[in-house]
Amino acid sequence: MLTTTDPRTGVSAATTLAPTSPETVHEIALRAESAAQELQSRGREFRAQLLDAMAAGVLAARDELVATADAETGLGTARLTGEAGRSAFQFSLFAEAVREGSFVEAAIDHAGDTPLGAAPDVRRMLVSIGPVAVFGSSNFPFAFSVLGGDVASAIAAGSPVVVKAHGSHPLTSKLSYEVLQRAAESVGAPRGTFGIVYGQQAGVSLVQEPAIKAAGFTGSLGAAEALQRAIDQRPDPIPFFGELSSINPLVVSPGAAASRGAAIAEGLFASYTGSAGQLCTKPGIAFVPSGPEGQAVVDALESLTAAAGPQVLLNDRIQTSFGEIADRLVAAGAVVGASGGSPEEGSGFAVSPRLLETTAGTLGAELAEEAFGPLVVVARYDSLDEVREAFGRIPRSLTATLHVEDDEPDVVSSLSSTLEASSGRVVFNGYPTGVRVAWAQQHGGPWPSTNSQHTSVGVTAVRRFLRPLAWQNAPEAALPAELRDGFTGIPRRVDGVLTLPA
Amino acid sequence: MLTTTDPRTGVSAATTLAPTSPETVHEIALRAESAAQELQSRGREFRAQLLDAMAAGVLAARDELVATADAETGLGTARLTGEAGRSAFQFSLFAEAVREGSFVEAAIDHAGDTPLGAAPDVRRMLVSIGPVAVFGSSNFPFAFSVLGGDVASAIAAGSPVVVKAHGSHPLTSKLSYEVLQRAAESVGAPRGTFGIVYGQQAGVSLVQEPAIKAAGFTGSLGAAEALQRAIDQRPDPIPFFGELSSINPLVVSPGAAASRGAAIAEGLFASYTGSAGQLCTKPGIAFVPSGPEGQAVVDALESLTAAAGPQVLLNDRIQTSFGEIADRLVAAGAVVGASGGSPEEGSGFAVSPRLLETTAGTLGAELAEEAFGPLVVVARYDSLDEVREAFGRIPRSLTATLHVEDDEPDVVSSLSSTLEASSGRVVFNGYPTGVRVAWAQQHGGPWPSTNSQHTSVGVTAVRRFLRPLAWQNAPEAALPAELRDGFTGIPRRVDGVLTLPA
Repeated sequence: MLTTTDPRTGVSAATTLAPTSPETVHEIALRAESAAQELQSRGREFRAQLLDAMAAGVLAARDELVATADAETGLGTARLTGEAGRSAFQFSLFAEAVREGSFVEAAIDHAGDTPLGAAPDVRRMLVSIGPVAVFGSSNFPFAFSVLGGDVASAIAAGSPVVVKAHGSHPLTSKLSYEVLQRAAESVGAPRGTFGIVYGQQAGVSLVQEPAIKAAGFTGSLGAAEALQRAIDQRPDPIPFFGELSSINPLVVSPGAAASRGAAIAEGLFASYTGSAGQLCTKPGIAFVPSGPEGQAVVDALESLTAAAGPQVLLNDRIQTSFGEIADRLVAAGAVVGASGGSPEEGSGFAVSPRLLETTAGTLGAELAEEAFGPLVVVARYDSLDEVREAFGRIPRSLTATLHVEDDEPDVVSSLSSTLEASSGRVVFNGYPTGVRVAWAQQHGGPWPSTNSQHTSVGVTAVRRFLRPLAWQNAPEAALPAELRDGFTGIPRRVDGVLTLPA
Repeated sequence: MLTTTDPRTGVSAATTLAPTSPETVHEIALRAESAAQELQSRGREFRAQLLDAMAAGVLAARDELVATADAETGLGTARLTGEAGRSAFQFSLFAEAVREGSFVEAAIDHAGDTPLGAAPDVRRMLVSIGPVAVFGSSNFPFAFSVLGGDVASAIAAGSPVVVKAHGSHPLTSKLSYEVLQRAAESVGAPRGTFGIVYGQQAGVSLVQEPAIKAAGFTGSLGAAEALQRAIDQRPDPIPFFGELSSINPLVVSPGAAASRGAAIAEGLFASYTGSAGQLCTKPGIAFVPSGPEGQAVVDALESLTAAAGPQVLLNDRIQTSFGEIADRLVAAGAVVGASGGSPEEGSGFAVSPRLLETTAGTLGAELAEEAFGPLVVVARYDSLDEVREAFGRIPRSLTATLHVEDDEPDVVSSLSSTLEASSGRVVFNGYPTGVRVAWAQQHGGPWPSTNSQHTSVGVTAVRRFLRPLAWQNAPEAALPAELRDGFTGIPRRVDGVLTLPA
């Protein structure tokens, strides 16, 4: 049986949940397969209604979800209440996007003469890729788990979803799955629209099921590599969208350090310690100028860090890894600038926040290892050239941040292309840890932060679970509604011209 | 030195071209990297002008290109003249798409209050993924090679391109590259916008170059797997868009066989023997009903095949493979229904067209091996259930075709979802071998026909070489023109609402 553990005490308790057997994984995948075609055929409005029901279901069960997740994650009720709201908002936003309909990229080229001769009628749109496997993360028990954005975007695409429950929050996963099932029942969704499996081996079996056509993953590079290997063994490899690791460099310009150093220190402290530093967008490296203004920023960061209490991490693996990586960073030459209060005996998976210091000139891959938890490495720099060169030696990221003053346009022009090449989102005068759920969001970036061509947050995340399909000279009855002549409900490209709904 | 071979005689001649050394591949990749940023910064209109110059360059050099390619491919001047026109048209169509600009998916979410609290300004668009490696095919020396759609879509995306010349047409590749270089010079494109490498090992080196960020490939499953293995060894795996193999099933309904069996036999014969059957969309399996009307179709196909002369294949590897696969299909139970004339001595890589016959009930993966060349397997069926079940046993494809009469709506409804699940393009009452270059085209399909989520023909092929990038609270100077307030040149999504240019 699976266990559930309170990270504030480290005490585990048995659950009634067993790891899912390969046979059951297979049955669940087959049910998802049979649901796939039915779900696609019901059309967009049905999926929007299902997403609305999912949003309502999260809000209706919010108190129980928060209490259960708090006991399994130690993230606190304030943060978890906000996160449940984020989950509901995501479902609602995808419902809106499904109704708006431009994500299907409907396009019609009528038959006619072309410079290459007579051409047939060709119509194209994006359709569901088929059932999707979703691997949630430990650090977002709602918004990146069973009630998360991968599930929302898969359903928006018309894809049934089988989630693999995260071992750190099995009871939250189970409760979340019940919310999904109630939503499915409330609108009469086909059986198999949602499925759940438990246990690491079940996850590996899941991505090898022939019925599964894509996988979304948020978690560690190591776990992702194991799943990728399993996928590579399939006769038909499937797309794997993994959001893996990210160091999220942040640069403080000389002007910004001089004019608002104290505020930046406070903001950066809050950003690297929020949720105990367990965010994929946590700034892991901060470039701060040499000299007295930069020193003031560092002094303020040291004070804030030294005054901070211990923070509880999500599980023992993360706790152990945090300590090991912090030690490796020091062994690689980083100096401990400050540590927060030490955890008491019996305080579960608690650790001290850590501020490490180095110089941009010596910063390389060894000092850019992501420590998942409350740790930041401050790298002092003498010139922007030094910063640019250091970016070339560290891994690329989900985000890159620049604090800069209005009267420093040269700093912006000097660093822009470096920040853009190294990340999927460039943040100005803010912190990367808030990820707005919106149409224009991009949460992804060059390897290893994620699959480089897609996002896992925001409306366009739906593109991951779609495939294009074209019909040539098709009779009207064989076409989806969106591609029939006279349909005006969504934006379409007709003979090359984008047209809006009537 | 590389050799060039006339497939009509099999006689080889030396060229002055040498395989590219790993050092030179590295230099070429570095030049592409330095061109990438410059190309992106010049904006869309510059890329459109470059594409226009490429189109004009192809037309200006058409006669020499056709003569050179004819000597290396034996495809004939009519077909090659048409194909050169197709290449030029592709470049022009992408120029149009680049100017139209919606493919960058510009989206702006202004700062404001949301149900989740105050949110920052976030703006997103697709930008070049970086330099792209392109591996052209043997069977389209222009339209899927150095002057092909992968090159067109990469340039449209703003990505420099390094092509790997196909070993079957090195002189055509060199001449084509010179056309590209002249076009680049005529508009002042950055040095490194185009590059070319020769030899198989150079291709493997190319996809392992850190500067290369994606690869497009058209060719055999075996060659693709070798490149994929090389890519998997990179510390940062890159997207690989391979169009590999495809069996392209075609179904003739009972009604269609009865009402226009002779025309279907003629069309199918032309489709499976056109370009000597060396098209990735060649119908490799034709389901024909049992009974007298189906038999008439088969009889007509047999007559046409028996009366056909030998056909010249592109190279000795394809010739050898064609014979071996035809033998394997017969060993697996297919019966030779008819063969065309036998090649004479000294006629190079010529083979006889082949019509094989079997039943749908016995059709499985063994009888669905793609024979690249003039060969089709006719599978007779008693019921549509038999056809549907056979589709479940054969690989999925780029295309699936149905010949059906207007008074057979039950046939359409019975087979539609099978055809859609098994392919990227469903063709009605036509043949899959013509692939219209258009906005709504889809040339791709479920594994193994290609990367399942994209197309390699048509405007949306550009999406393969783009990555999303977001800017948060960016000063105007840091934003690309398309994301600045007040810009009205292209369709954009502003605060969730799709807006057309003023």
